[in-house]
Amino acid sequence: MTLLDGIKSAADVRKLPVSQLPQLAQDVRDRIIEVVGRKGGHFASNLGVVELTIALHHVFDFSRDRLLWDVGHQCYPHKLLTGRNDRFDTIREAGGLSGFPEIAESEYDLFNVGHAGTAIATAVGMARGDSQMRRDTAVVSVVGDASIVNGVAFEGLNQAGTLDRQFLCILNDNEWGIAPSQGAVAEHLAKFRTSGVYEELKTHAKSILPKLPVIGKTMFEALDHLKEGIKTTISPHQMFEQMGFVYLGPIDGHDVAHLIEVLEGLKNVHRPVLLHVHTKKGKGCDWAVAEPGKFHSPKPFVIEGDKATIKSGAGKSWTRAFVDCLIKLAEKDERIYAMTAGMPDGTGLDKFADKFPDRCRDIGIAESCTVDMAGGMAKSGLRPVCAIYSTFLQRAFDQVFQEVVLQGHPVMFCMDRGGLVGGDGAVHHGFLDITFLRGFPNMVVMAPMDETELLEAMRFGLTLDVASAIRYPRDTVPEPTPGGAPFELGVSRRLREGNDATILAYGVMANQALEAADILSGAGYDVAVVNARFAKPIDRDMVREAVGRGGPIVTVEDHSVSGGFGSAVLETMVDMELPVGQFRRLGMPAERFVRHGSRGGQLAEVGIDASGIASAVQQMLEDHDADGDDGRSDVGRTSSGRQNEILSR
Amino acid sequence: MTLLDGIKSAADVRKLPVSQLPQLAQDVRDRIIEVVGRKGGHFASNLGVVELTIALHHVFDFSRDRLLWDVGHQCYPHKLLTGRNDRFDTIREAGGLSGFPEIAESEYDLFNVGHAGTAIATAVGMARGDSQMRRDTAVVSVVGDASIVNGVAFEGLNQAGTLDRQFLCILNDNEWGIAPSQGAVAEHLAKFRTSGVYEELKTHAKSILPKLPVIGKTMFEALDHLKEGIKTTISPHQMFEQMGFVYLGPIDGHDVAHLIEVLEGLKNVHRPVLLHVHTKKGKGCDWAVAEPGKFHSPKPFVIEGDKATIKSGAGKSWTRAFVDCLIKLAEKDERIYAMTAGMPDGTGLDKFADKFPDRCRDIGIAESCTVDMAGGMAKSGLRPVCAIYSTFLQRAFDQVFQEVVLQGHPVMFCMDRGGLVGGDGAVHHGFLDITFLRGFPNMVVMAPMDETELLEAMRFGLTLDVASAIRYPRDTVPEPTPGGAPFELGVSRRLREGNDATILAYGVMANQALEAADILSGAGYDVAVVNARFAKPIDRDMVREAVGRGGPIVTVEDHSVSGGFGSAVLETMVDMELPVGQFRRLGMPAERFVRHGSRGGQLAEVGIDASGIASAVQQMLEDHDADGDDGRSDVGRTSSGRQNEILSR
Repeated sequence: MTLLDGIKSAADVRKLPVSQLPQLAQDVRDRIIEVVGRKGGHFASNLGVVELTIALHHVFDFSRDRLLWDVGHQCYPHKLLTGRNDRFDTIREAGGLSGFPEIAESEYDLFNVGHAGTAIATAVGMARGDSQMRRDTAVVSVVGDASIVNGVAFEGLNQAGTLDRQFLCILNDNEWGIAPSQGAVAEHLAKFRTSGVYEELKTHAKSILPKLPVIGKTMFEALDHLKEGIKTTISPHQMFEQMGFVYLGPIDGHDVAHLIEVLEGLKNVHRPVLLHVHTKKGKGCDWAVAEPGKFHSPKPFVIEGDKATIKSGAGKSWTRAFVDCLIKLAEKDERIYAMTAGMPDGTGLDKFADKFPDRCRDIGIAESCTVDMAGGMAKSGLRPVCAIYSTFLQRAFDQVFQEVVLQGHPVMFCMDRGGLVGGDGAVHHGFLDITFLRGFPNMVVMAPMDETELLEAMRFGLTLDVASAIRYPRDTVPEPTPGGAPFELGVSRRLREGNDATILAYGVMANQALEAADILSGAGYDVAVVNARFAKPIDRDMVREAVGRGGPIVTVEDHSVSGGFGSAVLETMVDMELPVGQFRRLGMPAERFVRHGSRGGQLAEVGIDASGIASAVQQMLEDHDADGDDGRSDVGRTSSGRQNEILSR
Repeated sequence: MTLLDGIKSAADVRKLPVSQLPQLAQDVRDRIIEVVGRKGGHFASNLGVVELTIALHHVFDFSRDRLLWDVGHQCYPHKLLTGRNDRFDTIREAGGLSGFPEIAESEYDLFNVGHAGTAIATAVGMARGDSQMRRDTAVVSVVGDASIVNGVAFEGLNQAGTLDRQFLCILNDNEWGIAPSQGAVAEHLAKFRTSGVYEELKTHAKSILPKLPVIGKTMFEALDHLKEGIKTTISPHQMFEQMGFVYLGPIDGHDVAHLIEVLEGLKNVHRPVLLHVHTKKGKGCDWAVAEPGKFHSPKPFVIEGDKATIKSGAGKSWTRAFVDCLIKLAEKDERIYAMTAGMPDGTGLDKFADKFPDRCRDIGIAESCTVDMAGGMAKSGLRPVCAIYSTFLQRAFDQVFQEVVLQGHPVMFCMDRGGLVGGDGAVHHGFLDITFLRGFPNMVVMAPMDETELLEAMRFGLTLDVASAIRYPRDTVPEPTPGGAPFELGVSRRLREGNDATILAYGVMANQALEAADILSGAGYDVAVVNARFAKPIDRDMVREAVGRGGPIVTVEDHSVSGGFGSAVLETMVDMELPVGQFRRLGMPAERFVRHGSRGGQLAEVGIDASGIASAVQQMLEDHDADGDDGRSDVGRTSSGRQNEILSR
């Protein structure tokens, strides 16, 4: 039995003597390496915060105090130490633990998070809220160096600096976000790290801090003294101090005893404090330290000797397909300029940057800025391509509005992770992009069904004078369906003829729709399948034909049914004054969030896998065959089956 | 003829000798005071940047160089100096000049803006874009001290610091945004301003700068020298220098000759420079300087002697109604905590703060942070009420998602300026809030038709365990319609019975719908009117009754027809398998932005004033009476009039 096995709750961490904590850290690390190696998941960032997490739970009681993790993907040690070790190997699986903090799992998880930069602001809210409610808690937030350059993190710091109470913000500086940190602040931190002062200061802090009295005022005099001592050197302290923080650090984030000493000292300080902790992403696995980007969130891997090999996935990813297409197009169009908000790896743009280093830029985790910059670049005559996950483009909604569509700028948004994302779950599904993007004038919204179409969609988007958005899922690209023509504005693609019903599918769902039609064919139904290609503008001929064909119309989208593609079709039908007969929108439910699991499982759960689509269509056809009247007596109610029959007379 | 009358374009400003520029400044100021006094509009901020604008146009040629105004409401002097003096008295009127930079008006307006904090990021985009296109331009952005604390401004600074080319960011520090600036950075700037160093430095800068050689490197040595001289004092320079900027200032923003000297010196500096300029909001009018909040964007006013009196509007504003309701509720509910993002005046919360200073906070222009803090406060057990304009809540879309609805937190969003906003135009309409908010699980979306209902909606929202959003327009509150019951989840309110058609109105539109019904009554039609109250959840009984009633159904919303209330009704109809007959959604068009003008004019333009609604309904009724078939031969097309007739057999 390991020390970790004995930890049934965070209270057990507090009981362990400090001398045993390095062993506990080793146990935690071993458990993470074993489980993530076997199943995949967030890895290097979790190895980086093992000692910090242990120290935090040793010093504070977070059943009462407040611990807010920024981004949250570094919560694995936290989960292991707060009573979830026994279920840890279910992480990211359907019905298992979430890969992010999850309020439904534990009182120790305060917020479900997955998007970066928000913890400081929420922590300020809790600090003010707890003070207002006269609740005496300590509030601690842990923020990475990549997150801290995000706008809302800065806004949070700016607010935190006005607090007149305890508030501890820990800067977990591992020199990496998901990719190397970007921007001037990152450069500044880097410059600082490489200066001799850094090492000197580390020693200095180490020798002074344990001797500090632990109570408020006096401590500050000592801190101020420390601060004075380094005033003439370059250091991040000025920046944070100007925002009203006491700045302390950097200290070694892997020395658990020292971390505990410092945290004990800071526990009762009634002022905002920024503690700069230096950690190594991947700590404990040299191969992960060497390639933290690769091991940020790897697929399952095998460790042999001093290296690890990630098992290769089955088939080519949409991510890879996107970057292949972009490279093809960029070879012939010098105006193309590619941008990512901190995800060169996740979006595939790292491969683009290898080829066109001067035509690609990682802006860091700053989606709003990325889109604003793209607006500026478009104004200068470039063709910016913003590769941003659907869920993260939510962070630039207002910038898409003001700096792109209000100006009519031809920025192209390539949204990976459009739709259900599998293991990352509710914090990462791309579930509203169609709804909010199609609300904008000067915007074309489209989705391809395979790689051939992706290239055509992108090629077409580059011919437009206005913005365009293209979505594709976190999945492998399906086999290409032959026979697709180039994209034309608002023109759909007929995939299969049929007389009994019509499936109007958006994007990758066209593949499932074709399979569904095969299933229905086996049941004797002859169903037409259309690949809509566009959610804006909707193909009016497609809609007219579907109505003319008679029988049920089913829309399918890997997206919420609220205001999405199906609603766009419906709006078009009534705008064209076409009769709406049997009509059903399949997609993600509007009233609940879909939890983590496999993407395949999620598609089935919400009924948009092939068999779900087939049974929805079949049910509608059977309702129709049964002549529809279910005998309910609601005034004015006409069953849609009956209505359809009347209309098709 | 004034000097200003002789300015036909910015080129004329460059031709004037510096000695004449103070007179030009006086002319510009006089013109603004005269026109805004007569018509209302943005005022104090424009008076503050007169000399700065003149100096910029004197030094740079912005037909080639790039000038980016942040927020843009301070663009009046810029408009007067770039060939728009003759049309200046049409500002904010339908068909006249926009009150914000407007690309359709002038090549000198690069971006239509109205939302704060974005100019630095767009400027970085243009700087990188122009460099990429090998275009040799100078890029200048002007940002206020209130905007610079916005997250995207910080993200922009962080990117700007990495530029290896000319880039000038001017910090227009007037100690005010729309309200006094908020947060630690603002406090820091304030501390700096009140220190003796500030005055000393001003003199210092003034004496040194004109003597500086104007070319790159050497200048920097001098700048660095200047910088060294102030290193031991508190100053904002450290913050900006840590972000990669050369920091210079503060200098007097009303000394046009000095401004020109400094700008000439900076013109060819090939590095990012932050020039801190100190201005007075309202400069030239002591009464505006004394109350810059009141004179930020006043209604027409009369100047008598040494004071100005703002003409009072006709009737009580929704803003005032909101704060009256909130005060009423807060008196009985201690959990209520009110928050605004830099708009205490605009949202009415200044009056709440007078009453409950400890239960109200202005977070500054930082909408994302405001919503994240609200999430934290809700977690602590408070009932945060976020008073944020509909258009600005777009800036916190992702925070509403992650920190509020994903957690199921009962934050209440009170959205002023929901719908068409009149003179502020396209940058400020609240046109997508229904669409994006109703896409979220754990969210109730509602709108009142009058003040009585506003109180009931808020009272009801406070009973919920989930988030709620309430919208109301920039308008006066209508006379209350008697007889409304308290709000119940998803229950609409019947306002008028009728058999010929149904108008389903959302929020304030119920008043126009009632008027429309009166008009229709005069034409012999008996039309039912329903006040929907909820866009989420939609009242299913209301929908069933409307269908049962027969005849056309018209939805009316002061919002885009894309994915909004009308679409929600339509989705509900097909989900309930009810037949969709004659159905029309009235609202703002999905395919274009509505320009500035009066709110009344805008409602009429998009057809949602009483007469527009009446004629839409009448036309549908007449189509129906005419038996609908318009003879078009589209396959499968049945005119909705005919369909309705079939269904009502």
